[in-house]
Amino acid sequence: MKQHTLLMPLDMHLHLRDGVMMEHIANLSSYSFSGALVMPNLVPPLKTKSDVIAYKERILHCTGVVPTDEDEEFMSEQDFEPYMSLFYDNYSKEFLEDISEEILAIKLYPAGITTNSEGGVSNFDIESMRETLEAISELEIPLCVHGESNGFVMDRETEFMSVYELLASNFPNLKIIMEHITTKDAVEMLDKYDNLYATITLHHLLITLDDVAGGMLKPHLFCKPIAKRPQDQQALLKVALDAHPKVMFGSDSAPHPQHAKEACGCAAGVFTAPIALQALCELFDKHDKLDNLQYFVSDNAQSIYGICPDFKEVVLVEEPFKVPDIYTDVVPMFAGETLKWSIEDVD
Amino acid sequence: MKQHTLLMPLDMHLHLRDGVMMEHIANLSSYSFSGALVMPNLVPPLKTKSDVIAYKERILHCTGVVPTDEDEEFMSEQDFEPYMSLFYDNYSKEFLEDISEEILAIKLYPAGITTNSEGGVSNFDIESMRETLEAISELEIPLCVHGESNGFVMDRETEFMSVYELLASNFPNLKIIMEHITTKDAVEMLDKYDNLYATITLHHLLITLDDVAGGMLKPHLFCKPIAKRPQDQQALLKVALDAHPKVMFGSDSAPHPQHAKEACGCAAGVFTAPIALQALCELFDKHDKLDNLQYFVSDNAQSIYGICPDFKEVVLVEEPFKVPDIYTDVVPMFAGETLKWSIEDVD
Repeated sequence: MKQHTLLMPLDMHLHLRDGVMMEHIANLSSYSFSGALVMPNLVPPLKTKSDVIAYKERILHCTGVVPTDEDEEFMSEQDFEPYMSLFYDNYSKEFLEDISEEILAIKLYPAGITTNSEGGVSNFDIESMRETLEAISELEIPLCVHGESNGFVMDRETEFMSVYELLASNFPNLKIIMEHITTKDAVEMLDKYDNLYATITLHHLLITLDDVAGGMLKPHLFCKPIAKRPQDQQALLKVALDAHPKVMFGSDSAPHPQHAKEACGCAAGVFTAPIALQALCELFDKHDKLDNLQYFVSDNAQSIYGICPDFKEVVLVEEPFKVPDIYTDVVPMFAGETLKWSIEDVD
Repeated sequence: MKQHTLLMPLDMHLHLRDGVMMEHIANLSSYSFSGALVMPNLVPPLKTKSDVIAYKERILHCTGVVPTDEDEEFMSEQDFEPYMSLFYDNYSKEFLEDISEEILAIKLYPAGITTNSEGGVSNFDIESMRETLEAISELEIPLCVHGESNGFVMDRETEFMSVYELLASNFPNLKIIMEHITTKDAVEMLDKYDNLYATITLHHLLITLDDVAGGMLKPHLFCKPIAKRPQDQQALLKVALDAHPKVMFGSDSAPHPQHAKEACGCAAGVFTAPIALQALCELFDKHDKLDNLQYFVSDNAQSIYGICPDFKEVVLVEEPFKVPDIYTDVVPMFAGETLKWSIEDVD
């Protein structure tokens, strides 16, 4: 029976939400990942040091590495590092210096482009952003960017490439992470600027718009950015399988309750946290690239972000894994289907 | 108060389904339309004379122009002509001659391309289709075509243009109706061949993929062919508003129960029958083209198909029409919204 061990897997783009939803889903990530870069698009978004610290405490509480009030023992022995991010705004250098120890990255959203992004940037005027971006660059905080214009849905990422070029060329020392890239254009951009990096989701490695809307309409595969064309998916798959050193896994796992997905107006987001490593193993194995998976799900992120997660070993085996129809009230990708690989052990 | 009268409005592409669903929705079409070309993609599809005749009787029963068993009076005074269509297959000339009086058109589906189209054409090999198509042409039966390839969802109609060219050039006397066109490419094809015509739906005049999947995912706007790009929608709108003589209104109104639309896998189809004339009035009025609407919703179809519907007058007024949230169990386009025009009277 084939077996594959991953060390310190990292999810560099994760939505843990808050409150009851977080209680339902956070331990699904902390079980199999060493750590995750947690997105700051709460309501309201994370924009102060105290909010970041308080949110991190709530996450640690849910993921079981701190004692609860009722139980002085650890809730579990899961070891999970929530790497925190700050919602981009025109911050002063003093503010950024003060908060820099608490965060791993700053996340920039165009205004209104996705879930809870209303307070994002509405005008990419570099000069008005220069002071903040220079401070971020000097403090060596990576800038994670949701790169979409407000144009036609299939063109949004491609139209945003000029903003990436502007940012990358104006701030050559700023590490810019193109988050959840979905196009061949973004893949090609990677090699054009030294300071551009990218995360790629599991679902964008696997699906195109055909899977979302080519047969039946599949709300559980609807996300932002929307899945694109076959040639885009192929370009993403290639750099992931080849373990391109500037590319990291970021699930963009985004839980919504079932009623918000199977509805008259369905919220954007694919929930992959509990099935991501199994599906990635299957995908990389299928392409005979299993040896590259370690880079994609951990080593590249460690290099790019300069992080050293505590030791964690996840052993996967080629044994059928029947994906649950639902986790509490969240329908995962591959709900009810059987994946070829399962997690055997986490140490 | 502005008023506009339409004479003998026709819906040249309509799904009435069968059984309970037809009982729920058929009278919503027969109320405001003089007649409709009824699609044959039932389960099983309409492929015999007796099936066509029996289906027509069931439609007339539902639309209230024949007496019921219990009531010797007419159920209503609605006057509605269901123009019947036959599901394309490799029919003999004898068969087609025999059935020709019962049908207005033959509908050709590529196999598996949309709801209940599994029995359609899987290989557009003109030579193997020649005998049937020549018979159809000689009998002067218009051929209605669902024009989509099985390629990437946004390219399917454009990829089908070569089949239209093949059909149009090989059978110059065959009237070919490109059904529910959605692209600029199809619009441009109209003027390339004398024997090509088209229907356009209400929803493809109004929406793009952005409306379906650009914000929230909207299952009630999901249809086949899927709504395309803004430039496509603009091209469709132009020929409709200009009352291009080769273009007719065909709603493609396709009811599905709410649970089949707001689900894990959502069925394709937009339900517009009860709101189509009101929304068309609003659209044509907004563009100051109200005088052209008569051509788009009736006169062009009468000329193209050579039909003379009985007199029916539908008076619309510029008065708010609050669209119901649901008709029995079918959610219409604009559910819960208010249209500017309403139907005042039908005579």
